Amino acid sequence: MSNMIFVATGSVAALIFAAVMYHRVKKLPEGNEQMIRISGSVHKGANAYLKCQYSGVGIFFAAVFLILLTLAFFGYLGFFTPFAFLTGGFFSGLSGFIGMKTATMANCRTAQGASQSLNRGLKAAFSAGSVMGFTVVGLGLLDLSLWYFLLSEVFRNLPEAERITEITANMITFGMGASSMALFARVGGGIFTKAADVGADLVGKVEEDIPEDDPRNPAVIADNVGDNVGDVAGMGADLYESYVGSIVSTAALAVAAGFGTKGVGVPMLIAALGVISSIIGTFFIKTKEGATQKHLLTALRTGTYISAVLIAIFSFFAVRLMIPQDMGIYGAILSGLIAGVLIGAVTEYFTSDSYKPTRRLSASSETGAATVIISGLSLGMLSTVVPVVIVGISVLVSYYCSGGASDFNLGLYGVGVSAVGMLSTLGITLATDAYGPVADNAGGIAEMTHMAPEVRERTDALDSLGNTTAATGKGFAIGSAALTALALIASYIDKVIQIAPDYKLNLAITNPTVLIGLFIGGMLPFLFAALTMSAVGTAAQSIVLEVRRQFQSIVGLREGKAEPDYAACVDMCTRSAQKLMIAPALIAVVVPIIVGLLLGVNGVAGLLAGTTVTGFVLAVMMANSGGAWDNAKKYIEGGAYGGKGSSAHKAAVVGDTVGDPFKDTSGPSINILIKLTSMVSIVFAGLIVSAHLFT
Amino acid sequence: MSNMIFVATGSVAALIFAAVMYHRVKKLPEGNEQMIRISGSVHKGANAYLKCQYSGVGIFFAAVFLILLTLAFFGYLGFFTPFAFLTGGFFSGLSGFIGMKTATMANCRTAQGASQSLNRGLKAAFSAGSVMGFTVVGLGLLDLSLWYFLLSEVFRNLPEAERITEITANMITFGMGASSMALFARVGGGIFTKAADVGADLVGKVEEDIPEDDPRNPAVIADNVGDNVGDVAGMGADLYESYVGSIVSTAALAVAAGFGTKGVGVPMLIAALGVISSIIGTFFIKTKEGATQKHLLTALRTGTYISAVLIAIFSFFAVRLMIPQDMGIYGAILSGLIAGVLIGAVTEYFTSDSYKPTRRLSASSETGAATVIISGLSLGMLSTVVPVVIVGISVLVSYYCSGGASDFNLGLYGVGVSAVGMLSTLGITLATDAYGPVADNAGGIAEMTHMAPEVRERTDALDSLGNTTAATGKGFAIGSAALTALALIASYIDKVIQIAPDYKLNLAITNPTVLIGLFIGGMLPFLFAALTMSAVGTAAQSIVLEVRRQFQSIVGLREGKAEPDYAACVDMCTRSAQKLMIAPALIAVVVPIIVGLLLGVNGVAGLLAGTTVTGFVLAVMMANSGGAWDNAKKYIEGGAYGGKGSSAHKAAVVGDTVGDPFKDTSGPSINILIKLTSMVSIVFAGLIVSAHLFT
Repeated sequence: MSNMIFVATGSVAALIFAAVMYHRVKKLPEGNEQMIRISGSVHKGANAYLKCQYSGVGIFFAAVFLILLTLAFFGYLGFFTPFAFLTGGFFSGLSGFIGMKTATMANCRTAQGASQSLNRGLKAAFSAGSVMGFTVVGLGLLDLSLWYFLLSEVFRNLPEAERITEITANMITFGMGASSMALFARVGGGIFTKAADVGADLVGKVEEDIPEDDPRNPAVIADNVGDNVGDVAGMGADLYESYVGSIVSTAALAVAAGFGTKGVGVPMLIAALGVISSIIGTFFIKTKEGATQKHLLTALRTGTYISAVLIAIFSFFAVRLMIPQDMGIYGAILSGLIAGVLIGAVTEYFTSDSYKPTRRLSASSETGAATVIISGLSLGMLSTVVPVVIVGISVLVSYYCSGGASDFNLGLYGVGVSAVGMLSTLGITLATDAYGPVADNAGGIAEMTHMAPEVRERTDALDSLGNTTAATGKGFAIGSAALTALALIASYIDKVIQIAPDYKLNLAITNPTVLIGLFIGGMLPFLFAALTMSAVGTAAQSIVLEVRRQFQSIVGLREGKAEPDYAACVDMCTRSAQKLMIAPALIAVVVPIIVGLLLGVNGVAGLLAGTTVTGFVLAVMMANSGGAWDNAKKYIEGGAYGGKGSSAHKAAVVGDTVGDPFKDTSGPSINILIKLTSMVSIVFAGLIVSAHLFT
Repeated sequence: MSNMIFVATGSVAALIFAAVMYHRVKKLPEGNEQMIRISGSVHKGANAYLKCQYSGVGIFFAAVFLILLTLAFFGYLGFFTPFAFLTGGFFSGLSGFIGMKTATMANCRTAQGASQSLNRGLKAAFSAGSVMGFTVVGLGLLDLSLWYFLLSEVFRNLPEAERITEITANMITFGMGASSMALFARVGGGIFTKAADVGADLVGKVEEDIPEDDPRNPAVIADNVGDNVGDVAGMGADLYESYVGSIVSTAALAVAAGFGTKGVGVPMLIAALGVISSIIGTFFIKTKEGATQKHLLTALRTGTYISAVLIAIFSFFAVRLMIPQDMGIYGAILSGLIAGVLIGAVTEYFTSDSYKPTRRLSASSETGAATVIISGLSLGMLSTVVPVVIVGISVLVSYYCSGGASDFNLGLYGVGVSAVGMLSTLGITLATDAYGPVADNAGGIAEMTHMAPEVRERTDALDSLGNTTAATGKGFAIGSAALTALALIASYIDKVIQIAPDYKLNLAITNPTVLIGLFIGGMLPFLFAALTMSAVGTAAQSIVLEVRRQFQSIVGLREGKAEPDYAACVDMCTRSAQKLMIAPALIAVVVPIIVGLLLGVNGVAGLLAGTTVTGFVLAVMMANSGGAWDNAKKYIEGGAYGGKGSSAHKAAVVGDTVGDPFKDTSGPSINILIKLTSMVSIVFAGLIVSAHLFT
């Protein structure tokens, strides 16, 4: 129990640190009146969106809550489970909300800071990113500890194994709530941000020939709101889900691995130590006035690497304290940490314009849009090879280190722990990731308020720096998703054995139900990507019409003499996103249940494996193709192949536009999809084992 | 044995029918001197390419032959196996060669026929397609029967089970030879044809502003050669491989299913009956002078449907004769047949401009190239859902019909038989598929020889008709690939149990080696698609430079006063294709061996399942996105959204160019990849069980 108090303390430390950072941002100068006004509109729009999203999602949560309550009533689930589901969703949403609130507050302050120096711009943006990073980890640990304390108290009379089973079952449902919320936030926010972006560009840049972020464009505020609700609030909910997911999936394997209470404690303790390491790491991010972009990158890297080294040291003692009988678990933690860093490096290699792949992609724009698309798709596909190999090695290492050769369950527990290790320093990695959209927004404000050109140059430098650090962040998110999903599949099987020891399990991949499950699972991420991408297209289309309408009907808009109706665009994006996020989100919840009812547990196991494998590969591909297209365009804008306005640039813009839904809507939400399907399967396992057609 | 004589008779009947058709084509009028000259250049170019390709592939075959011989020497393989490998490759190549020879002979004859009427054009092109269709099935059955007779004789003193094991092991190696050849032909031919196509278009249409198939374009002959070596010779080798693959994979399961010799006979007998059904079907393809495009489509459909109904009737008696104790097998045949037809219908729905998806794709071109790409990709992804469900149902039905509920091996044999059922009428479906490229080529000749515009209109009508019937053909090819691959995975496991009964098999998808195999397998089709797509890009780039060079250095070329150096372009395409086909083809052979050496049989089983699942989904997506882009462009060229030259048309051309390598290079070769990896695994199973690191 004492270690759980330490975990709670860690979470409180993270929240205090986030609060300190929040006030540090708040104290910074906001800039002139016009900047404050624009920042206010963005804040108002983002608030309106989130309010609408949460009320829409509320209906979904109410419905699922009632279903879970019914299942609990009939004995398929524990009494607390439906409530755990609600709280998971609530806190995931809250993480996004706080991140968004901080980001909309920080955007004008970052622009103001950048008007003085690159360093001051970074400080404002990075502090805002830290609020998000530490809120996510703080809330995640807090909620898990609270549930742990509550359930330990309620079930104190049960024998240890049963007590832990009750606790971890509730934790998984908590995770399912968080994942559901994250999926809505990522998909809804992703549709909003890309529809606004594409809509603003198609009419503004292409038809009306006005520059980006021009205040005459009616969709310009919607575009900035989109950065906050998609890239900030969506990312916050998403990483909350990843963080919590890695912990609960590992905890769920503790009993089978024979570690009991201590086995549940290990992932939480490592996470708490990760918070400490991350806080220490941030103190090493020191920059001087007059620092260049390169200095800043070095500073950010120093911070994250120091945190990684610290957690590598701390976790040795944690394992030694909790389960000295299996020090191999420490190897699993290290393998997760190293795999995360390596996947990040590969992502950077494939998407940064400092390396060959993106340079070559830029060159292919000289022969037109078609070759840019072909090259970008094949770059993304090629970039999946090394991450797959890294994940494979990491699974092997963590499995065998933890004793998988002698006990299957020990090995799987090790795989779960490696995901926790990978995400343990999320506090600082998320901070370096989340400051990017803040800098992007600051650039928009600088443009709209006609600040000096060097301000925009500085915010662009910060933004492009953010792209590089975000690559590392994405590596952690994607890698941990694969490992967590594997741990979840294992806990699904555990759960089935627990509730129905006589169930005819036949998980061999030559079993036709497993194979059919695999096929459906392999198709699911494609279906999901298709729906989310076409949603962006549909929503963008409606914005295009609205922006065109305003240019035609508002007299003097083109000349800058009249104000556009910004709110109408925000409102339209909001409504489109709300409507179009329903189908993809429902699929993640409904398909595993339907497959379960038809093909039983074996089919579901196939489904989960198929979704994890294809989802991982497709998510990596989409993220990297999208990132590379973005940076290839930026590289040309930097002067290569004729620079801005050249035919190469036009071709590169096509690539970038295709890449937008790839990297900011479909790609990241597939990460959530692969975990949510597993969690839904676990929660509904009781129902499935008692009602299905085939095995 | 008597039934095997019937099989041999069936194969001879197919070959005689093909020969009759060949002479029917040959007797048709060839047209004027200019047409003969151009047709001659295309024939010469195609011959030169195939010669070069076969000599390159010869080195590969020689190397693998030596490896197999060494393995046979050390007792890992039977003595005949290396020779079976050689013959498989030889006959697969021969099928392609004969198809190509007929097609290059038929192109001017089709143009000449089309100058008189649509009906005469169809007759010439369809007869050429029939030569290909019946050569493929005739050679396939002939080779299999010959090996069967030879090996039955050689091993006549062995007990039945052992004798069949020897026979089917050789047949699988024969299949591996055919698949290897097919992969080279599809990839090499696919690179050639798309590089020439893209290269000709980029300089001709875009830079020099001359129409398609203009004789001034130096790449125009290479473009027409490409249609023959890619779409004809490549397709011939490919479908030879599918046909033989479905039969040998089913035969390999006969012993485990307890059917003995009769079990090997069933798929061959059904195939022979399919030949008879197909020949009868062709007699129902009657068209009158003055028939419209719609009449022709009805005629083609009547022929294929009558063949399908006939084989449905015939196979009932075949099953009754051979294995009356398991009439459920008949259900498996029917399920395969129906699944093939349904997948074809879905393919048509998603790719024909008569239906909503392609119409909407055309509409998306109004907002530019980026939206065309996004919509096309999401169309392709969405189109994977129903085929996956159809394959799933077909597996369930054929498994349980055949008695899978009581005996696992019976069920898997049923799955294999369903693939044979699906491909049984290949003679006629391939004929309706293969005539398309002939019509396309005829159109090129009409254009180059300045024939009356209605000739081009007629060949275009035939070509577009071919697109529709080809959709059905692709449905059969893709569906059968999935089912065959599943049968091959099952025979792999059978083989391992046979040669090493004590091997520690653990095929559960929760076994980490299986999981890692799944991940690598899931990534493999992406890697393969990346390499083939970028190969097309690289090769096209070199053609662009060559065509530009000729326009700059040959005086009077632009004005039509000097002839371009056609041969230089053909030669360059040939060399690029030869060089760039090596890496993707090697991957298919090397990866299963490496994974086997590292992760053992369990890892390989995961690899094969992963490759099959992701490969199937990705191949369907690429084929359908590509087909829809092509037809969306054609729909606009028909006058929608501003017609030719409009900005919508320009955007649609980008989609079509991206779709070219999708549908004609990467997509179809993934079908071969998923079977070749399985066959390689089976052939090298002896080596793998005795040497590997993990299990």
